[in-house]
Amino acid sequence: MQDVSIIGIGMTPVGEHWDTSLRDLGQQAVELALADAALDLTDIDAIVVGNALGESLNRQSHVAALLADFAGLRGAEAVRVEGADASGGLAVRQGSLMVAAGAARHVLVLGVEKVTDVVGAARNDALANMLDHDYEGAHGATPTAMAGILMRRYMHVYGLELANFEGFSINAHANGSKNPHAMYRNVIKPGRFASAPIVAPPVNLFDCAPEGDGACALLLTSTERAKDMVPAPIRILGSAAASDAFALHSREDMLFLSAANLAAGRAYERAGITPQQLDLLELHDSYTVLSALQLEAVGFAQRGEGWKWAAENRIGLAGDLPISTFGGLKARGNPLGATGVYQVAEVALQLRGAAAENQVADAHLGMALNLGGLGSTAVAHILERVE
Amino acid sequence: MQDVSIIGIGMTPVGEHWDTSLRDLGQQAVELALADAALDLTDIDAIVVGNALGESLNRQSHVAALLADFAGLRGAEAVRVEGADASGGLAVRQGSLMVAAGAARHVLVLGVEKVTDVVGAARNDALANMLDHDYEGAHGATPTAMAGILMRRYMHVYGLELANFEGFSINAHANGSKNPHAMYRNVIKPGRFASAPIVAPPVNLFDCAPEGDGACALLLTSTERAKDMVPAPIRILGSAAASDAFALHSREDMLFLSAANLAAGRAYERAGITPQQLDLLELHDSYTVLSALQLEAVGFAQRGEGWKWAAENRIGLAGDLPISTFGGLKARGNPLGATGVYQVAEVALQLRGAAAENQVADAHLGMALNLGGLGSTAVAHILERVE
Repeated sequence: MQDVSIIGIGMTPVGEHWDTSLRDLGQQAVELALADAALDLTDIDAIVVGNALGESLNRQSHVAALLADFAGLRGAEAVRVEGADASGGLAVRQGSLMVAAGAARHVLVLGVEKVTDVVGAARNDALANMLDHDYEGAHGATPTAMAGILMRRYMHVYGLELANFEGFSINAHANGSKNPHAMYRNVIKPGRFASAPIVAPPVNLFDCAPEGDGACALLLTSTERAKDMVPAPIRILGSAAASDAFALHSREDMLFLSAANLAAGRAYERAGITPQQLDLLELHDSYTVLSALQLEAVGFAQRGEGWKWAAENRIGLAGDLPISTFGGLKARGNPLGATGVYQVAEVALQLRGAAAENQVADAHLGMALNLGGLGSTAVAHILERVE
Repeated sequence: MQDVSIIGIGMTPVGEHWDTSLRDLGQQAVELALADAALDLTDIDAIVVGNALGESLNRQSHVAALLADFAGLRGAEAVRVEGADASGGLAVRQGSLMVAAGAARHVLVLGVEKVTDVVGAARNDALANMLDHDYEGAHGATPTAMAGILMRRYMHVYGLELANFEGFSINAHANGSKNPHAMYRNVIKPGRFASAPIVAPPVNLFDCAPEGDGACALLLTSTERAKDMVPAPIRILGSAAASDAFALHSREDMLFLSAANLAAGRAYERAGITPQQLDLLELHDSYTVLSALQLEAVGFAQRGEGWKWAAENRIGLAGDLPISTFGGLKARGNPLGATGVYQVAEVALQLRGAAAENQVADAHLGMALNLGGLGSTAVAHILERVE
């Protein structure tokens, strides 16, 4: 099994790209990643595409072959990987396994989602396809509605109110305000969080991450080759994925993210590290309650105390565990199937020391934790700077 | 890189399973594959699901985590792989890479498609999502309409008429008639082919494969472990995938299946064999013109002469190169994202000597060739019986 490293990173800003199609977005990120690694299209053996809802949002399945063609990779092996908004993380994992198995030298991993082709109720219908259609979607549930149920339960069990979660969003927007690729660059003022317009009670506008258009590409190769190719390769030290009971109602304990726990645990084991060695964590902050539950599931907070990490301001760029360092899903935006690739790219930029105003000092080890749905799928990648 | 083998096979019949849902179909195949390998659910590390159109046909994305849960694999790594009707072949490839890279011991590969949830024009709309939406689907094209254009061109260039293709469908139905898992078990009488009702001229009802519901599961592990586990492991000797210009109109030569040529060529090279060493070929006979073009692209027939292999009856169970030995897509049926897994399973059954009335004598080496769309994606697997 070959050791795998990241040698190229390219991303578009996340946002409402009304004038840019799915294939254009993808192609832009591919070009940027190739330029970053100083590689040509002809060097690429395979492309792995993470895309969550192409069928629903763009009436387009089979997107990997389409994007391979449009990006100039005609002939290359092309495969799409999907696991709702964990598609990107799963694509990074499958791409890295291609290199690890020796089946490809240079693999492009491309996360891409074009969300704004569909708006309003049709958008909610599309997003609901990530839930259990027969038992949730068919009854009108959307991911945000289910997040509302989850958050209400968390607040009830631990005696909390909405304002207790504000630190997550304040931190995300503070970091996003400095990231030129972020969808929202406004800051959220302390005290304003709890009074934002309600979306699915108790989840409000400042609580849930916006879906956006975006594409992010990574170039992977073996660590051995990488050392001769780029000045600062970033090694994939541990990688793992796991699943949980699919629907919220069938979980043994709704307030424990079992898939996140398993995926992170396996990744820690493969990397040979403890959680406390991490210098930063890009977690899946699509809703603040998920941020709290992830900190509890992957070794940082006790049950019911994940929210305190935000309340006590331990998650800022200079805190004990910086999270959402480029704004997270909340402020950078959530381009669904591309999100997991953005997360890995952002950890890699931190470890390169290339995070500009968002830089975490002395970052050597970081983890990206990507969730699908409300944690039915989880993917963890632990990255390390190759010295 | 570890050598990978197939140790378990399970499949449902392909057909119109009105009383069975996507998850039920998948679960049935998983149970059969586990029983075949005498493994328990707890032995499985990961499940890779090939599914083409879950969003369009079932309003269900994120199917891998859903099926992992429903099949009793809660916690296991779960990932869906998609490439239109090449999803199954791509899933086998990604699953085998997980074993090859040492990332999992036992991997379940499950191809599953529930087509009959949607009928009529809505079915055609869903199928059109596999084409280029912006340049084909949006203008009303369906895969069968595009196959009609392709076949008309082939007939024009090589001076053929519809009846010249009848051998492919006669062979498929002859073999399907003996396969209890086949969707259609009727035989097509010589001379009746060309007068079947037209679907998209010149493609007619006897020319194009029917979509059907179905699920097929394979259990993969390392060849080293496999030898101690089952009496007849089937080794994946070579595996490869490739892409082509996505839309038919942008191909340099519409009558050459470049992706099939590349994928098969890479698989031959990895397996260290020549095409002539193959004892059978499960090709992607969704339309007879594609069968002809595949025989030309992967080393059997000269350009424009693929149809002769059928006309000269060289493709029967006792012929030079048996194809569609269990009925192929034409008679066994085409469960889209499951098709590629059925193909690999059928080659494996032949090599096991477990093909009953469909057995090819002395089968030691076989290839499965799975196409996505009209050949925009191709996946080749060369299998060998481990002696």
